[in-house]
Amino acid sequence: MATQPYKTIGLLGGMGPEATVDLFRRIVRATPATCDQEHLHILVDNDPSVPDRTEALLSDNLEPVVEKLTAMAQRLEAAGADFLIVPCNTAHYFLDRVRLTVSIPFLDMIEETVTSLCREHPAQRTVGLLATTGTLRTRLYPRRAEKVSLTVVEPPATDQPAVMAAIHSVKSRGANADAASVFARVAAGLVAAGAQAVIAGCTEIPLALDATSVSVPLVNPAEELAQAAVRMALGADA
Amino acid sequence: MATQPYKTIGLLGGMGPEATVDLFRRIVRATPATCDQEHLHILVDNDPSVPDRTEALLSDNLEPVVEKLTAMAQRLEAAGADFLIVPCNTAHYFLDRVRLTVSIPFLDMIEETVTSLCREHPAQRTVGLLATTGTLRTRLYPRRAEKVSLTVVEPPATDQPAVMAAIHSVKSRGANADAASVFARVAAGLVAAGAQAVIAGCTEIPLALDATSVSVPLVNPAEELAQAAVRMALGADA
Repeated sequence: MATQPYKTIGLLGGMGPEATVDLFRRIVRATPATCDQEHLHILVDNDPSVPDRTEALLSDNLEPVVEKLTAMAQRLEAAGADFLIVPCNTAHYFLDRVRLTVSIPFLDMIEETVTSLCREHPAQRTVGLLATTGTLRTRLYPRRAEKVSLTVVEPPATDQPAVMAAIHSVKSRGANADAASVFARVAAGLVAAGAQAVIAGCTEIPLALDATSVSVPLVNPAEELAQAAVRMALGADA
Repeated sequence: MATQPYKTIGLLGGMGPEATVDLFRRIVRATPATCDQEHLHILVDNDPSVPDRTEALLSDNLEPVVEKLTAMAQRLEAAGADFLIVPCNTAHYFLDRVRLTVSIPFLDMIEETVTSLCREHPAQRTVGLLATTGTLRTRLYPRRAEKVSLTVVEPPATDQPAVMAAIHSVKSRGANADAASVFARVAAGLVAAGAQAVIAGCTEIPLALDATSVSVPLVNPAEELAQAAVRMALGADA
């Protein structure tokens, strides 16, 4: 068996833990391998003590989140990671600051999702977005989407508390039918408002919402990130 | 939110990657938590370049395995792990040597499984064992079982090549019906030979074999290890 020529993936986890397990599994399944030794070296730092990202944004108390993410990124770099990923959409607001503290690349899940949307669904110019209030307020998706002339439709403000409650219920008790039903109902509203695809823009959402419950393509950023991480680790992006 | 008072779990992974994802998920689900911040800090080093443990044992080429396991254990300790676990039964043959190289405890999945068997199924004095050829040859389970007067029944030598092929097929293409059927058939043979419970003694086996396919209790060492790790992390063993 030759020495592994591939890059080591560093995964900042814990936001939430189930979403971390989900991304880890997606990376393993996306790896072309026929035995243990052909798989990728993946370091996971599942530190769930990172403060709630949406609360930090809404209360303008960002430093504790930045400190935790930075500590994780630096631990992963010290342990041998060649590049970093984080399966939490809202945490991407802090990506540029965390990048300054390490010397390895940090893949951007939101960038990967928008790029994939343009590649896989070029005819669809209006996309719906289900996400945390933190992700909506910081315009993480619209800012990237505008660059490629994609229009992002968000749920009406009156629906957002139900979306947040459903996200928290997935974090608390795992995928559940009540949360799935909220996500499906709000997604249907986005489609009625013109969305030709829907982004499941919080990593807890696709844990509960099945693609068959949405009448347009449901884009899962965790799957896009897994595919991008495997390509990068294998050197296929070089 | 108070600072996490819990111990950090260090998980030596990659043997195989799917079994690593499975144990990680079991730990998350076994943790009593209602939000991200109540979950446990878990460090996973999924290094699949550890040579095949059974091949190393059968060819008496142990040092490359010891070196890889030691490097992972030391990386995890350096990153902040308070204790270690490894979701690979065969790798437990090397546990005593790896323990010498770190200053933190290393939970023993085989010990936890035998202890749980005695606690949960006290009337059952004969257990069947499905495992790799490496785990069988090194008598990892019988050596512990003898101490508590448990008798371990193994498959006939003529069945073992099929068990190994099924384990490798799970590593290669995930859980599959062919592997499940081999495991169920050989487990039925163990029951016919007197087994009152069956240990799924290779972490790939319970990925494919459902407990309902076996007429006696099927004991999953990965679940026993997950429960023990959560107890230790929460300080419930103190």
